[in-house]
This record gives sequence, structure tokens and C-alpha cells, in this order.
Amino acid sequence: MKIVIINSGSSSIKYQLLEMPSGEVICSGMIDRIGLEGSNLTYVTSSTKLEETLSIPNHKVGLEKIANLLMDEKIGVIKSTDEIEAVGHRVVHGGSDFTNTVRITEDVKEKIKQLFDLAPLHNPANLQGITVAEEIFKSAQQVAVFDTAFHQTIPVVAHQYPIPKHLFTDSKIRLYGFHGTSHKYVSQKAIDYLKQNTKLLGSKIITIHLGNGCSMTAIKDGKSIDHTLGFGPMNGLIMGTRSGDVDQSVIFYLVNTLGYSLDAVNTMLQKQSGMLGLTGYSDLRDIESRAESGDTDCQLALAMNAYRIKKYIGSYAAVLNGLEAIVFTAGIGENSSYIRKLVCTDMDYFGLQLDASKNETRSKEIREINTADSKTKILVIPTNEEVEIAKQVFELLNN
Amino acid sequence: MKIVIINSGSSSIKYQLLEMPSGEVICSGMIDRIGLEGSNLTYVTSSTKLEETLSIPNHKVGLEKIANLLMDEKIGVIKSTDEIEAVGHRVVHGGSDFTNTVRITEDVKEKIKQLFDLAPLHNPANLQGITVAEEIFKSAQQVAVFDTAFHQTIPVVAHQYPIPKHLFTDSKIRLYGFHGTSHKYVSQKAIDYLKQNTKLLGSKIITIHLGNGCSMTAIKDGKSIDHTLGFGPMNGLIMGTRSGDVDQSVIFYLVNTLGYSLDAVNTMLQKQSGMLGLTGYSDLRDIESRAESGDTDCQLALAMNAYRIKKYIGSYAAVLNGLEAIVFTAGIGENSSYIRKLVCTDMDYFGLQLDASKNETRSKEIREINTADSKTKILVIPTNEEVEIAKQVFELLNN
Repeated sequence: MKIVIINSGSSSIKYQLLEMPSGEVICSGMIDRIGLEGSNLTYVTSSTKLEETLSIPNHKVGLEKIANLLMDEKIGVIKSTDEIEAVGHRVVHGGSDFTNTVRITEDVKEKIKQLFDLAPLHNPANLQGITVAEEIFKSAQQVAVFDTAFHQTIPVVAHQYPIPKHLFTDSKIRLYGFHGTSHKYVSQKAIDYLKQNTKLLGSKIITIHLGNGCSMTAIKDGKSIDHTLGFGPMNGLIMGTRSGDVDQSVIFYLVNTLGYSLDAVNTMLQKQSGMLGLTGYSDLRDIESRAESGDTDCQLALAMNAYRIKKYIGSYAAVLNGLEAIVFTAGIGENSSYIRKLVCTDMDYFGLQLDASKNETRSKEIREINTADSKTKILVIPTNEEVEIAKQVFELLNN
Repeated sequence: MKIVIINSGSSSIKYQLLEMPSGEVICSGMIDRIGLEGSNLTYVTSSTKLEETLSIPNHKVGLEKIANLLMDEKIGVIKSTDEIEAVGHRVVHGGSDFTNTVRITEDVKEKIKQLFDLAPLHNPANLQGITVAEEIFKSAQQVAVFDTAFHQTIPVVAHQYPIPKHLFTDSKIRLYGFHGTSHKYVSQKAIDYLKQNTKLLGSKIITIHLGNGCSMTAIKDGKSIDHTLGFGPMNGLIMGTRSGDVDQSVIFYLVNTLGYSLDAVNTMLQKQSGMLGLTGYSDLRDIESRAESGDTDCQLALAMNAYRIKKYIGSYAAVLNGLEAIVFTAGIGENSSYIRKLVCTDMDYFGLQLDASKNETRSKEIREINTADSKTKILVIPTNEEVEIAKQVFELLNN
């Protein structure tokens, strides 16, 4: 079964064509700067790597361009869009309505629309990807996979906020959580690994997703029971430009005493904070190399970053009343031995013993980087949201 | 040495007269509703208990009234204000300037004034208490004890926020912490107790202050190294009417999408949130009795409250890389067996084993409420900020 995965952003489309259930990636690529001057398109198959700069005025033109490449006589991989049996769409916000992957109906599209207010940057773009895909992949089943769905198992004690109750019941203000597809994918991989390779069941694990956005999830018996991101995607861990947790009284002080506008504070917390605000740099590789050269701001920012991860490990060990493994994933989690080392240092109370040389190895496979006698396992697992989406689409359509 | 302790609020003065170093309380009481109609005054000695409703237009008249009662022929305890050798003032915010208790000079008063912006509800009232006391207790040494001082040992990795650095360096936005006098007092008591009664050193403990305000402190070798309250006194744990930690994106949504004014959000988070917002009640005793009668909102609010305390216990165990004891203190911490039970249930990963019957005992003394084999000790220690202030004043003047 050929499945196209579409991740449609406000000015970009990322796509993959997979053969399921094998998970083989037949083709992948992206278009960015849609609607702006000079869009970049990439198209990669086992035999072709195309990069092109062209004009893509809107998502429809973009997806048509992709469909045409897929069917191209020379570098295409299908003869007709009819070969695509399903299109899986990443949808960021499923609110409280969607606890699972669903076939897209008019009703589902209406509900995604009703959630625009909760994810103004993402849901409109996601819906646009859906409507365009419906026109282009006419015979395919359209399926929505929600970033929030995995976190719908978080109990009310953790997902309600201590603010007036009507804001929860009427205005739906609560913790939703994000990066759910990634947390689900790596947690399942971790549980399988632990069952096969250790005496542990993997019933109490913590997944640490460190990428452009960063978040952690406490996972009990395969289910998300707590998570660092909340109503929006800006709290919890320190990110590239997003602050993570900040005492809310700072916001009132910035506006009431220092004269900031509330919009300026919002922009500051989303785009000028985190690692960028602390160091002047947002790319972790730059920050690490500067830290190694003695830049004290960079050293401190990395230490703060790791300190907060440690604190959440402790929190989630409390929520789980135990800990069998922690899992690092996503760009930084998979590649930064520096951050992993900071996080795992002086954490023997939680049974964490990092193997320094294993921590330095690079691989695209799942790997264990703790010492042989470490009570708690430290895993690095490459995430793959597209494969997880394809898997969920395949399972939905075959059940 | 006779020392008067003054805790001057915006419309109240609490006072105690102590004999030091014995710590004997000679007299105590308060005046509330200063500047409003019908102030209430209390004056309590070993032989007298006076309650009076009268007109107290300002702090000066209030403190004069107190001084006159202290020297009263019939119910007084001193002959002249000259017998008072020192006045210890509780000052809420010492910023980064004050790491210790200090003698009050013109320079100190000026610095307390410069911190008005950081504690607009407290520091002006505290300064007013100081200027009035200087006039009335002319021959006494005036001393300031800062609520923030104990937390000045929190390292930068925990006290700086991940926002643009200039807000830290230039605008002094950082974690300051509060309730320092209480956390210092009970932590010292706990360390003494552990050294005398157990094999533990008390080098890794967590103090949990649950009163009108609520906060927790991670204490390493007697020093505060992390704390739940931050720049202002509204984050961290769930309080009676204050929210505690809330994803900041909720604030932007309330203003930008639901049309709240920022002032309304501030008022809501400070005065209509926490236990009140969740249940309609702010007094924990009401909430507990309703929970016991089956009120599900009250049950949930108590569970949420305890859940967050558990999470911070885990966090601070990570920061400390260990845990020898947790300490409950202040009104709720000392009296609510209900909350203590919720907090300590399913926390055996941290070595916490509550003794159910010891948890129910009431006493004004320090007590251990864990089972005999509990690896981590659970202590209840009545706080006494006035005695701590008097102790610090006495030590300052005798060194």
C-alpha cells in the first residue's frame, strides 16, 4: 500500500511516499517559501536528488508540482495518483476531540477548523494541505494524525490548570501537549527494545524530544501520563528561541513596569528567548563549539538547559513512582553527546550511569549508552514521525 | 536582650516582643484594617488577652498605640521604650543586594525603596514600619531581615531565566524566592533533628511551606539551592487563590482571543485561581471536609495540589541527587494530614513511607511521621518566623 505523508506548514510542505507495511521510503522532499519569492523544492528517490528554486504561489500549485514529479516519466515513481491509496496528514492540534487517528470527513475538517484559535500557526496550514490533497489525490483515503492525540491519556490531575474552572470546562484551556507522534514512536521502540534486550518491561519510561521544539513525556505502560508542553508549544524545556517555563509574574512586570506591549512579550518569549536569548545563538552546534572554546554564556545556557531536563526527569520519576529508562530523540537528543552528558551527570540517585564512550558513538540505529551496571537504561532512538504517521494510517485502514 | 519584631503590611502590623537569646515571647499581637473603619487590635501577654476595635488612621498611630500598651501601668511589660534594644523588621524583598540580615542605615532604606517595583505590595509597607519604629523606639537598633536573603545561595543555573540576557543583567529579572525566613528556620531545625536522632546528616532535604502562600526549597548542606517561587510570589505550587505554575501561553490566549484585559488576568491568577478557582473555596479545611463528603471538584483540587508537590519533590531530588528528608511546615503543612497523605502516597521510589497513625497526631513540637523503616524521613516542623528573625537580629548585634 502506497501512502503519502504530508506535513503542511504555513509556507511549506514536507512530504514522503512510503510503501506500507514495510515502511520503505520511496520518495521524500519538501517545498519551502510558498507564496514568497524563490521557493525551494527538493525531491529525493533512491536514484534521484533534485533541488530546484522556482515560483510556488500557493499550496495547491506546490502539491501539484510534487504530484507531477511523482509521475514524471524520467524521475517519477508512480504512473498515476490513483496508485496512492492513502494520504496521511500531520495535524498539530486535535483538541480534546481527537484521541486517535481518523479518516477525514467533512465533520473532521470542521472540527480542525474549530481548533484554529488553539493553534493559529499550524491548524489552518494543516487544513489547507488536506483540501489541496483531496483535489490532487482524489481516489486516496485522507487520514489525519494529530500531534496532541498521544497525550489524550494524560489524566485530569495533570492536564487541568489551577485557574477558574470555567476556563477549563467552557473555554477548553488545559494541557494538550505536542510532539505526540514522535513521543509515541520512540516510546514504542524503547519498550520493544527493553523487553527484548533487558529484564525490564518498559512500563516506566521518560522520552526526551530535543529538536527545534523540545519536550518530555512521562510514559506509563506505553501511555502518556504527563508532558512538559501545555496549552501552547512554548513552556517546559528551554528551546532554540522559545523560553520554556518562566514565572508568569515576569510577563506582568515587563508590561506594567518596563512598558513592553503584550505582543512584544509574546514575540520575545517565542522568538528571542531560550538558547538565543541567553547566548545570541540558536543553533546548538554553534553554542556547543563556543562553550568548548570557553564562552561562559554558552556554557551557562547549556547547563541551564540540562538542569531543567534533569528536574523534569525527577518530576516524572515521581509521577511514575519509578524509572526504567530515559530516551533521547530528535535532532539534538540524537546528536548532542554534550547535552546528554550534562543531563546524566550526578544522577546516580535515579540509577543513571552514562558510558562516556558509548555516548560519543553516532548511529542511525537505536542504541544503549549507559554502563553495563546502570540500573536505569539510557537510550538514544532516532525518531521518525513520517513512519509513525504511515503506520497509524495503515493500521486504521486495515482494521 | 529585649527585641521587638515587626511585620508591617499595607494595612496591618503584626508584632512580638521577645527576650533573647531564650526566645521567650513576652508579648504578641496585631493591628489590622489600618486606615479603614474599625481597626482590630490584639495584645497578648502571659497574663492578659486584650482585643479592641478602634480607629487607627495610619501606621504611626498604630505603633504608638502598641508602644503605649507595652508600657501600660496595668497590663504593660516594660517601663520605657528604652528597654527595647533592637527592632527586627521583616522585609519581603531584598533583591540581589541583601544576602544577609543588616543594620538599617539610610543607605539600606534607600535600597529597600529601589526595590519597590519588585514587591509593590510589600516593600513600601515594610519601609513604613521601619520609619515609624525609628521614631518610636528611638534608642533601639533597627535591623532588616529579608525574605529573599536565604535564597541568595541559589546558583545562577537555577536563578536566571531563559529570556534575553539583558533582562537579567540590566533589569534584574530573575528568581528571588520568598518565605526564606521560614525555610531557613525549619531546615535548620530539621538538620539538627536528623543529626541528633538518625544516622543522616541532613545534607539533602526539601522543605515544603504550605500556608497562605506555598513554596518548596531544595536545601543542600543547609543552603537553599532551588525554590518554587520566582521573580514574584505567584508561581510554583497551587495556593489558596494564586495559581502557581501555569503555561504562559494561557495568558496570551486570554488576552488575545478571549478578550481579557491583562490586569484582569493578573487579578485572576493572583486572587481567583488556585484552590479557590478550582473549587469555589480557598480555605483548605472547607475543601477537605467537602472532599470527604464526596465533592469531586474538591477531591480533584486536593489531588492536583499534592500532584504538584510530588513533582517538585522529584525535581529537587534530581537537583540534590539524593534525598534524606522532606519537611512539612506552616498552617497547612503542619495541620493537614490529608495533604501530607496524598503527597507521600506512591512515593516509595523516593524512600517515603508514611506512618498513617503518626500522620494523624497533632503537636506543636517537631515530629517524625514516617514508618520506622522509611529510608527517607518525613518531618513536620512548626515554623516560627518571628523567632527566626529575633535570632538573626540577636546574632547580628552580638557578632
